[in-house]
Amino acid sequence: MKRMKSKYEIFREKIKVILYGTDTIMGRMFDLVLLGLILLSVLLVMMDTVQGISQKFHTQLLIFEWIITVFFTIEYILRVISIQKPVKYIFSFYGIIDLLAVLPMYLSIFFPGASILSVVRALRFFRLFKILHIPQISHQSSQLREAIEASKEKILVFIYFVLISTIIIGTVMYLVEGKESGFSSIPMSIYWTIVTLTTVGYGDISPQTPLGQFIAAFVMILGYGIIAVPTGIVTAEFAKSSLKNNVVGTKKTCKKCNAQLHFDNARYCYECGTELPIN
Amino acid sequence: MKRMKSKYEIFREKIKVILYGTDTIMGRMFDLVLLGLILLSVLLVMMDTVQGISQKFHTQLLIFEWIITVFFTIEYILRVISIQKPVKYIFSFYGIIDLLAVLPMYLSIFFPGASILSVVRALRFFRLFKILHIPQISHQSSQLREAIEASKEKILVFIYFVLISTIIIGTVMYLVEGKESGFSSIPMSIYWTIVTLTTVGYGDISPQTPLGQFIAAFVMILGYGIIAVPTGIVTAEFAKSSLKNNVVGTKKTCKKCNAQLHFDNARYCYECGTELPIN
Amino acid sequence: MKRMKSKYEIFREKIKVILYGTDTIMGRMFDLVLLGLILLSVLLVMMDTVQGISQKFHTQLLIFEWIITVFFTIEYILRVISIQKPVKYIFSFYGIIDLLAVLPMYLSIFFPGASILSVVRALRFFRLFKILHIPQISHQSSQLREAIEASKEKILVFIYFVLISTIIIGTVMYLVEGKESGFSSIPMSIYWTIVTLTTVGYGDISPQTPLGQFIAAFVMILGYGIIAVPTGIVTAEFAKSSLKNNVVGTKKTCKKCNAQLHFDNARYCYECGTELPIN
Amino acid sequence: MKRMKSKYEIFREKIKVILYGTDTIMGRMFDLVLLGLILLSVLLVMMDTVQGISQKFHTQLLIFEWIITVFFTIEYILRVISIQKPVKYIFSFYGIIDLLAVLPMYLSIFFPGASILSVVRALRFFRLFKILHIPQISHQSSQLREAIEASKEKILVFIYFVLISTIIIGTVMYLVEGKESGFSSIPMSIYWTIVTLTTVGYGDISPQTPLGQFIAAFVMILGYGIIAVPTGIVTAEFAKSSLKNNVVGTKKTCKKCNAQLHFDNARYCYECGTELPIN
Repeated sequence: MKRMKSKYEIFREKIKVILYGTDTIMGRMFDLVLLGLILLSVLLVMMDTVQGISQKFHTQLLIFEWIITVFFTIEYILRVISIQKPVKYIFSFYGIIDLLAVLPMYLSIFFPGASILSVVRALRFFRLFKILHIPQISHQSSQLREAIEASKEKILVFIYFVLISTIIIGTVMYLVEGKESGFSSIPMSIYWTIVTLTTVGYGDISPQTPLGQFIAAFVMILGYGIIAVPTGIVTAEFAKSSLKNNVVGTKKTCKKCNAQLHFDNARYCYECGTELPIN
Repeated sequence: MKRMKSKYEIFREKIKVILYGTDTIMGRMFDLVLLGLILLSVLLVMMDTVQGISQKFHTQLLIFEWIITVFFTIEYILRVISIQKPVKYIFSFYGIIDLLAVLPMYLSIFFPGASILSVVRALRFFRLFKILHIPQISHQSSQLREAIEASKEKILVFIYFVLISTIIIGTVMYLVEGKESGFSSIPMSIYWTIVTLTTVGYGDISPQTPLGQFIAAFVMILGYGIIAVPTGIVTAEFAKSSLKNNVVGTKKTCKKCNAQLHFDNARYCYECGTELPIN
Repeated sequence: MKRMKSKYEIFREKIKVILYGTDTIMGRMFDLVLLGLILLSVLLVMMDTVQGISQKFHTQLLIFEWIITVFFTIEYILRVISIQKPVKYIFSFYGIIDLLAVLPMYLSIFFPGASILSVVRALRFFRLFKILHIPQISHQSSQLREAIEASKEKILVFIYFVLISTIIIGTVMYLVEGKESGFSSIPMSIYWTIVTLTTVGYGDISPQTPLGQFIAAFVMILGYGIIAVPTGIVTAEFAKSSLKNNVVGTKKTCKKCNAQLHFDNARYCYECGTELPIN
Repeated sequence: MKRMKSKYEIFREKIKVILYGTDTIMGRMFDLVLLGLILLSVLLVMMDTVQGISQKFHTQLLIFEWIITVFFTIEYILRVISIQKPVKYIFSFYGIIDLLAVLPMYLSIFFPGASILSVVRALRFFRLFKILHIPQISHQSSQLREAIEASKEKILVFIYFVLISTIIIGTVMYLVEGKESGFSSIPMSIYWTIVTLTTVGYGDISPQTPLGQFIAAFVMILGYGIIAVPTGIVTAEFAKSSLKNNVVGTKKTCKKCNAQLHFDNARYCYECGTELPIN
């Protein structure tokens, strides 16, 4: 026997549908407005750090930021109220981000300058993935994640070798170049090695002695070559999952002759002509 | 009963064959002349911006540009006149580019400096693809397009993650480095992050504090590593289409249903179950 | 008939288990402490080269370095004593590194400045691989090594071509740019070519003449393109080993001849013709 | 009836074996000496351009260069004399390079400074491939060449798109940045675009306006992404040829059941167990 719902409960449920739901028109519209506001608030924080803009429009920017902060605060409170298990939400990934998104502005009342931290609101963009429940995109990003995860260990081993190399090369360059040409300490030398090995090459520090330039040339060619390794790892994973998923389905087996390498869309066994089960 | 063609109509048809056709000798020759003129006109616009050249040869360059502009204008008018559906051409991709290619020079009579916009003529290069109807090349470029299109969504998801990363890293660097060393605002910091993450590394802004350099080193290694992701995506697509076309035999076609991607050793069509010819 | 073990022999065996073993709790704990000390000692040597830190904390750093050196010395002596074949250990890769890790500090008594060489201690990190006998990681790194080894020859041929290209391009740039704009000698020009071809791009030397910039642009596009070659080589190796291991089923083994790489749908062993079990 | 060989003919044949042969001990030794001299002569030319070295050792360098030039001259004459078809050799790739290697020094008698051109001797390194007839390496380099050749057309189409993009982006940047910040002309702007797109990033020219930096960021991400395309093309080719050659032989067909995807080393058909022909 269902208990009559109080007005408050009906209100809570409505709010929940709007805030958490993505199926109703109201829910979707709220999500779009929210995304727009997140984008706007991140832009506001950014703009406020640009001197020219900040000097002219500081007050306007501040007002806008406060409006958005109040909106986010109300949204946060409603989210806590409307959900069944508020504690679980508060300590969830999204819950913490939602809180962090409003805190800096309130802190800035007591500690001026804290408002800069509002930029963590950018993390709220991750909601985009919850909101845009487009199956294709979530399929793509799950494939991406899978391939990266499968190659994680190989990449860690690779990075470990790279880091040891940078320490050794960095020290050698420190000894070779001396303090005059920017290689003022071993950590600085290691920094230079990473800048060079990754082919970034700022040029704020660059070797001046012939021997240093010779070693640098070696490091560059090394860096140019070993970029192949992470690329190779990730690509092989992609290729593997691609091949598995798209060209040939290994899961389909002909019941009569046990032939296995069927296309995903195959309807008849290529070996004996028996009809295959549709998946 | 065919109506007698007027002289004008015959002229129109001849023009059309020359301008749009690529099969007759006249048509091909016109295309080559056109390509040469496009190349020349782009070079002229470029040269005119080089100070040394512009001062010495400004008049000559101007005369040449006007000659080409007049030629392009006549060509445009003839194209409009000779085609069946002029409106469709005028608002087509090529039609708009053809118009944009001549407009700037005429505008420059009233607004000096507008002639620089003539550089949009470079877009006319795209005609090259229409002109060079070499099947092999159009096959290659269609394969390229296919592979890129198939990996479009994965790459967008990837770029989305990269952009969020740059916002967060950029803000952190702004907070760490302070305004002294070039990280004067968050947008500037994000600009630096992109410069570093993509391994471009201008060096116009580079971190000065030890902590900033440490984070920068991390960003570089990150950038060096994640370049593997788009490469992996595109490569897997290429490999897939390559394998589809080459290893799995495309030459076997089912006579009944025209399904094509059979294994070389397939004996029955996977689509309709008909027996396949043994090769 | 087993000889009674002397006290010294029991002590030796215990030490051996702690120093070389990774199975007992004591052995693992010692390894972790050792790793920590190696890391600490490398950091100390690095810190000592940073001027700000060195001036303030030189004495403290020195004391720490001496403590670690003494610890490493005792460890080295115990390793020599406790092992069956000390000569083999002394001249092994790890033995030489262990010795090199302590020598510089003792040398620094007579030659001030030699202590900087203590940074070779970083090489002791390689012990990490001995210590962390996690099968998964050693499997990964062996796969990495295999793929790199298989592509070694192709990469050498590639590097050979790149080096010849850099010599030729470097000379051309030396002739084109002249001595004013940093291309002061052919070796310097070759250095610039490597900096550009590998897309590092310091900017300490950059072409100033139009022709030089034109050639530079060509070199960049070349470098941008040929990075595909080592990547392609390594990736193909990875993909091959991946495919071998995963797509073609490694689980099917012929009972008679132990051949393993059967297709999933193979019914007879390709090696000896014996019938395989259907899975 | 064989004509008696004159002394001159015997001498010619001996010379031929030494100069062109790689099977006799004398022939191999001569090749190694030649390679050493080529390397030495290239180094000499390089050293002569380094100011410090040139000032001190100019006379010594010059003497060495003349000795090598005389040696190369004698070698060239002997090559022409000893071979059957001297004209064919003289106009062959190697013949022209061999001549170009000695000419500059003789020219430098009349035109001081021409000796710098001796650096073309570096091209003689290509002999290395003739000399080192190690089958494995020539197999590797032929595989390399094949993969690059197979992907040539796709890469050309790609480069064509990249070049058009650089023209358009370069012009936009010229219009946006103005002449103050290094974007002094459209060709200069295009040069900057290539520097950025290929992720070289010298930093000699870098955008100063916010809009310019925004476009630059876009160009960088574009460049970072499209590097995937040539890599993907080449890798797919490598993977294809690798797979074809190593994992699965498509050429082996079972005579009884026509199963085709056999391993290269398969001895029995995986489908019906019939013995396969050994290749």
